[in-house]
Amino acid sequence: MNTTMSPVADFIASIDAELAQFLADRQSFVAGLDAELAVATEAIADFVLSGGKRTRPAFAWMGWLGAAPEGDEGASVLRACAALELVHANALIHDDIIDRSDTRRGAPSVHQDFAHRHHLGGFTGDGERFGTAVAILLGDLALAWADDMFHSAGLSAEARSRAHPVWTAMRTEMLGGQLLDVAAEASVRADVADAMRVNRYKTAAYTVERPLHLGATLAGADAELIAAYRGFGIDIGVAFQLRDDLLGVFGDAAVTGKPSGDDLRTGKRTVLIAMSVERADTVAGQHLRSALGTDLSDAEVDELRALITATGAREAIEVRIDQLAERAFSTLDASTATAEAKQRLRDMGYAAVRRDR
Amino acid sequence: MNTTMSPVADFIASIDAELAQFLADRQSFVAGLDAELAVATEAIADFVLSGGKRTRPAFAWMGWLGAAPEGDEGASVLRACAALELVHANALIHDDIIDRSDTRRGAPSVHQDFAHRHHLGGFTGDGERFGTAVAILLGDLALAWADDMFHSAGLSAEARSRAHPVWTAMRTEMLGGQLLDVAAEASVRADVADAMRVNRYKTAAYTVERPLHLGATLAGADAELIAAYRGFGIDIGVAFQLRDDLLGVFGDAAVTGKPSGDDLRTGKRTVLIAMSVERADTVAGQHLRSALGTDLSDAEVDELRALITATGAREAIEVRIDQLAERAFSTLDASTATAEAKQRLRDMGYAAVRRDR
Repeated sequence: MNTTMSPVADFIASIDAELAQFLADRQSFVAGLDAELAVATEAIADFVLSGGKRTRPAFAWMGWLGAAPEGDEGASVLRACAALELVHANALIHDDIIDRSDTRRGAPSVHQDFAHRHHLGGFTGDGERFGTAVAILLGDLALAWADDMFHSAGLSAEARSRAHPVWTAMRTEMLGGQLLDVAAEASVRADVADAMRVNRYKTAAYTVERPLHLGATLAGADAELIAAYRGFGIDIGVAFQLRDDLLGVFGDAAVTGKPSGDDLRTGKRTVLIAMSVERADTVAGQHLRSALGTDLSDAEVDELRALITATGAREAIEVRIDQLAERAFSTLDASTATAEAKQRLRDMGYAAVRRDR
Repeated sequence: MNTTMSPVADFIASIDAELAQFLADRQSFVAGLDAELAVATEAIADFVLSGGKRTRPAFAWMGWLGAAPEGDEGASVLRACAALELVHANALIHDDIIDRSDTRRGAPSVHQDFAHRHHLGGFTGDGERFGTAVAILLGDLALAWADDMFHSAGLSAEARSRAHPVWTAMRTEMLGGQLLDVAAEASVRADVADAMRVNRYKTAAYTVERPLHLGATLAGADAELIAAYRGFGIDIGVAFQLRDDLLGVFGDAAVTGKPSGDDLRTGKRTVLIAMSVERADTVAGQHLRSALGTDLSDAEVDELRALITATGAREAIEVRIDQLAERAFSTLDASTATAEAKQRLRDMGYAAVRRDR
């Protein structure tokens, strides 16, 4: 295992190779139970190996490398980092059921895929219910397999004990963040504080802070570096989600791959939208509220964009992203992370908050 | 930790105490994230601590005791056994969504509970969708917490390494069995072999075989005792499910607590029903098929019961249960399990296959 920093593409290939090997092993176990069952669970491997930026494994790996680990645990740590992608598969498969999303990564979402197979197979009963049932169970399997992969990664007993509380906290925060998101959607208010709380746990903790923290504990980092990583992670993570909020309204559909003004059409309760509603005058606020989540024409999307810009919320979010990124980079600079990790984490942070898709 | 056999009630109280302590600790973590979130996750503790026979922890514990373990790991093993109840909470919460069951253990099922809270709270959007979304996420949390509890039970590194492959296999078999069940429901056939495969993994492996196997590996049992436990567990587990099939059609509603002829009304694809369809003549088989899963009157339920009895399927299942139990008890008798464990496992086996509810 070469632990010097490899280019991003090499890293993604290494993570994918670990996932492919683990999933092939699980598939062979399932095929031993029942061949038809293995056809269904193959959908997990298809989903996990079909793409994704491997953001969470990358932050975990950099957290480990940046703590200048001693010993030769690189191969095991890489497997433990890859297990984060299986947690993520659970999050996305179940999120797509909850949000009724038809597509994911340019393909049908898992529940849609199985609703379609129900139709093609001439099965009996309701195809949509069938698709949902299968997707619930495949998401569960992904979560169980994430734990199996983490705990069978080959880590030393010490490294595993240090990292286990972080692994534990991360999964509870991710699922808690999703619960808060569901609650916010059902709330009659559209409150900035509620939306920020969802960002904090559903995105920041789960995507940046805890992966870095996990990597640091695997390396046996001291409390000071862990605190720095976590501070950097929360700020970059929140800024990452705020950028997402902006792209969900103002993003170029040709670049994002999502419909233009997607968050307006789905009525997502983002910080940007909550802030716009709060800042708008009574008439404009009323209009925005009632238009969100409806079947908007392109002209209506343009009108709502102009309304949101006019409230100053768009500019305020841009300023907030800058402030968060600046603070994150200061925290990182002042930390004891290795020079190489600082450079790489700075690049990753920029990419997270300055992207156009 | 007193490792001599305590009465059943004491055992259940010990398991409940471990679960209560673990869940209180998780609840305090969640309350630190968000107070309202803790109100939602409290539903997991309510569900887990509201009853249940603790069948899986009991088989795991007897598997451990029966292997005459050395050392003083009793307290940790008890916690590891209790973690099985959290896997079970995931299975039941998600199964109730899939089967659209409104009640569980005499109370509203989790998705119904939250649909009701949506209504009472005057939330926005669809209450049923909200209930399903929350129940998906709470079932996920229960599964994640099961792993957390197992891996933080305080087991020795050796015991944990021995038991981990069994823990891994059990969760995949349980979820695989549920997937096979969903597939069987959607299948136009009602095949005995399909129904037996569901029994084998959804019930037998998950409820008896793997819990015993888990306990045995925790104790460091040899391959011979493990093979005996597994043989006993598969036979008793399959017989347990066949008894369930009989109760689902012929059970006394006043004793089972479920509607009379429940499996006929829901159209469940059990071995009993598949066998009846296979054995019935063309006209009767057609009638049975078309009546299953419809809104049956009590008179129609009685008529279908008579039809099933007339095919000989009821009697054939009773004979099969006896054969399985007999073989299970021979396997147990010939094993190297302690005399006390043999006696207790025989009692548990009888209770599983000779019950009326």
